[in-house]
Amino acid sequence: MKGASGVLHDQRAWLDEFWKDADVQIEANDGQRIQQIVRWELFQLAQSTVFIPNGIPAKGLSGSGYSGHSFWDTEIFVLPFLTYTRPEQARRALEFRHRMLPAARKRAAALHMDGALFPWRSINGEEGSAFFPAGTAQYHLDADVAFAVAQYLSASKDYDFLLRKGIDILVETARMWTSLGHVGRDRKFHINCVTGPDEYSALVDDNYFTNVMAKFNLQMAFFWVDWIIHVKTDEMAAVFARLAIQPQEWLLWRNTAEMMALQRDVDTGVDLQDSAFMSRERWDFVHDQARPLLLHYHPLTIYRHQVLKQADVVLALILLSSQFTPEQKRRDFDYYDPLTTGDSTLSASCQSIVAAEVGHEDEAMKYFLRALFTDVADLHANTTDGIHMACAGGVWSAVVSGFGGFRDSGGMHVSVDPKLPSGWKGLTYQLALSGGRLQIHITHDGVEVIRLEGDPIQIEIQGQLRVV
Amino acid sequence: MKGASGVLHDQRAWLDEFWKDADVQIEANDGQRIQQIVRWELFQLAQSTVFIPNGIPAKGLSGSGYSGHSFWDTEIFVLPFLTYTRPEQARRALEFRHRMLPAARKRAAALHMDGALFPWRSINGEEGSAFFPAGTAQYHLDADVAFAVAQYLSASKDYDFLLRKGIDILVETARMWTSLGHVGRDRKFHINCVTGPDEYSALVDDNYFTNVMAKFNLQMAFFWVDWIIHVKTDEMAAVFARLAIQPQEWLLWRNTAEMMALQRDVDTGVDLQDSAFMSRERWDFVHDQARPLLLHYHPLTIYRHQVLKQADVVLALILLSSQFTPEQKRRDFDYYDPLTTGDSTLSASCQSIVAAEVGHEDEAMKYFLRALFTDVADLHANTTDGIHMACAGGVWSAVVSGFGGFRDSGGMHVSVDPKLPSGWKGLTYQLALSGGRLQIHITHDGVEVIRLEGDPIQIEIQGQLRVV
Repeated sequence: MKGASGVLHDQRAWLDEFWKDADVQIEANDGQRIQQIVRWELFQLAQSTVFIPNGIPAKGLSGSGYSGHSFWDTEIFVLPFLTYTRPEQARRALEFRHRMLPAARKRAAALHMDGALFPWRSINGEEGSAFFPAGTAQYHLDADVAFAVAQYLSASKDYDFLLRKGIDILVETARMWTSLGHVGRDRKFHINCVTGPDEYSALVDDNYFTNVMAKFNLQMAFFWVDWIIHVKTDEMAAVFARLAIQPQEWLLWRNTAEMMALQRDVDTGVDLQDSAFMSRERWDFVHDQARPLLLHYHPLTIYRHQVLKQADVVLALILLSSQFTPEQKRRDFDYYDPLTTGDSTLSASCQSIVAAEVGHEDEAMKYFLRALFTDVADLHANTTDGIHMACAGGVWSAVVSGFGGFRDSGGMHVSVDPKLPSGWKGLTYQLALSGGRLQIHITHDGVEVIRLEGDPIQIEIQGQLRVV
Repeated sequence: MKGASGVLHDQRAWLDEFWKDADVQIEANDGQRIQQIVRWELFQLAQSTVFIPNGIPAKGLSGSGYSGHSFWDTEIFVLPFLTYTRPEQARRALEFRHRMLPAARKRAAALHMDGALFPWRSINGEEGSAFFPAGTAQYHLDADVAFAVAQYLSASKDYDFLLRKGIDILVETARMWTSLGHVGRDRKFHINCVTGPDEYSALVDDNYFTNVMAKFNLQMAFFWVDWIIHVKTDEMAAVFARLAIQPQEWLLWRNTAEMMALQRDVDTGVDLQDSAFMSRERWDFVHDQARPLLLHYHPLTIYRHQVLKQADVVLALILLSSQFTPEQKRRDFDYYDPLTTGDSTLSASCQSIVAAEVGHEDEAMKYFLRALFTDVADLHANTTDGIHMACAGGVWSAVVSGFGGFRDSGGMHVSVDPKLPSGWKGLTYQLALSGGRLQIHITHDGVEVIRLEGDPIQIEIQGQLRVV
């Protein structure tokens, strides 16, 4: 018997470890208010990710909202935090996804597709969404899971996970994409009739986020199969047999990725959220101000207008940062941000990160505070259903990736280029990388990187490639 | 007390009157089989349209299918028969729609639109559809009702109905369209995020049928308001007051009609079912043969392919016949017909009519027999739910408009240009026009038109304008 003091001791030890790995220190001019709330968000993440029997639900373990279901929130909003602070927990979350594969294969077959299609919302692997235009049609979930796998693999170099589980997810999701899309008259690969992250559009063609993430998904499936062929030759046969990989199949993924349609508007130079986005009427923001839109307007009214529930193209600018020029990011942000209601709690952190990057400091702080106070001040009037776990993860990202300037482009290109708010004196965060650990300390004088554990690591700091 | 013999006598008299007005005589080389089944279909129409307390439900009074709800089947598939054989019953059906106007105005307001939006399915005027992508998104219902009003007005010259009720429907539906669509960057009027007659596509932009019918709706609202201003000057004030028609409002309808986007594919010259239709993958008709598709494939699978449940552009070629050249009709039919599953019982009669017109006699007969046997041979395995009233109306249209060559372009251009099947010797039908009645007798030697009642009538026969 441990007794109460034993339990207390264990919990204290666990929490000490958590804060050692995951704490973020902010020296702001507001006393300790921001620091305190950021730590409150991290504590929510700690509580809901210490034990991951059935994934990380949208409300964590904090409430009954969404019936305990997991969404893409896990992979895109919570896993970056875990991958870069508590990688062993990231692995557990990805192992949960891997356990969903048999159900995801069945789901793909039911929809007459190859590979595996992860459910929009689920607690046991089966699709739990009753409204497919904003549910199953969000095929991007497959790419989100593959993104998290690729990000985890690059950050952790956990090749055991790759060979036993990660490659299964990458291959099966890649197969889903090749069967979902098709090559059009323009010889580009098009993915039609999908819904992107922004749920205020539905059943659109060539959603930019979906296509660019699917492209990355296909590239990663190719990359890691190719890597296994060349580097893990002894294990190759077992992987190929388990996944019934056909000769040259991985070349189809690479070729499909190369042909992926990514459309830019000729008039404005903006990356098109979907192929018909510019042909829609702009929402009347002056007269139609009731929020959230989804509780005040029929979906048909919302869908036919240029109006966003949440960051869509703008989220792609963060996740696959190195694929976009600074000018392109600014053009995209400046076009889409005025159209974005932020009716989803997933939005503000993304808007903050890109606003910081393109130089809109006031906007960046406004959106950061909106994310930070979402649950503490109950900004969406529904915290009673539980804490918004994606928003908590988004707060970490807004600090570390937004003001802290950290990007990884899905693990392919790790860089730090901070945008410290003028009202902050300093910011310190940590990154678990390649089995080691870096501390990033940012002031207005520059960036200091300290290697706390592990072998030397290559990282780009403010445009300069450095070995720490 | 009438007694049984009195009731029998009344019914006999009513039926004699019905057959005098509505009978179609076919001299075919099959004994009397086709003649008998055509009369069986007409008898179904007689039974379900003699008494119209709450419109004409999709199953008439023959079964409980669709819960007694009325759809657009009434106006587009049953009303042509009534308008041209039993106009007093057509008026009753349109009066039922008029009684729905208050609910339709409320519905439009709930969707943040002007005017009135008729429900996709209803028994009391309120929307009864739970799945809006294939329900409310079929805004074309407004244009279908307006079409039936315009058709009835032109055929009957019933100006009492126009001034008291018809004009209300035309004006309120026109208002819906101007608020639903918008002028795009190309200075065309676009109607986005709609579903056309073909339910195997959903939430598309610029559905051709919707746009061309909305254009006609707007033109008819302009035409009849303008006509009232110039011809019924005394009644104008009352109509304008009742409908709160604003100065110059009717010019907006005319201008919007002129700007309507009607898109033709550059490569094939085909009228585009919707703006993205050609970018979709063609359905694999070789491998995916299970029918009906809607019971075997997820909507998302169906929606992203080029595959039709029912005639869509092809239906517009019939309703607004004079707006299309023979070459265009052939091009459109030849493109869409191989993509059309006919999973809807509304389809075969339309396919038969246009096949006959463009010279595909074998196809025309095949589709005619498919429509004819739908209920008699229970081809869709659901006649137990009731007779398909739209299919019965479609059989009349396939005989009269298909082989009989009758067109009215919504009442704007009345013509007869028969395509008598080589296996038939003769065909005779009647048309109620301008309060009078014509008999059309067709043989392989030519067309004979006899005026049975009323004043001389102008009609185009085989390309020649004639006065009968």
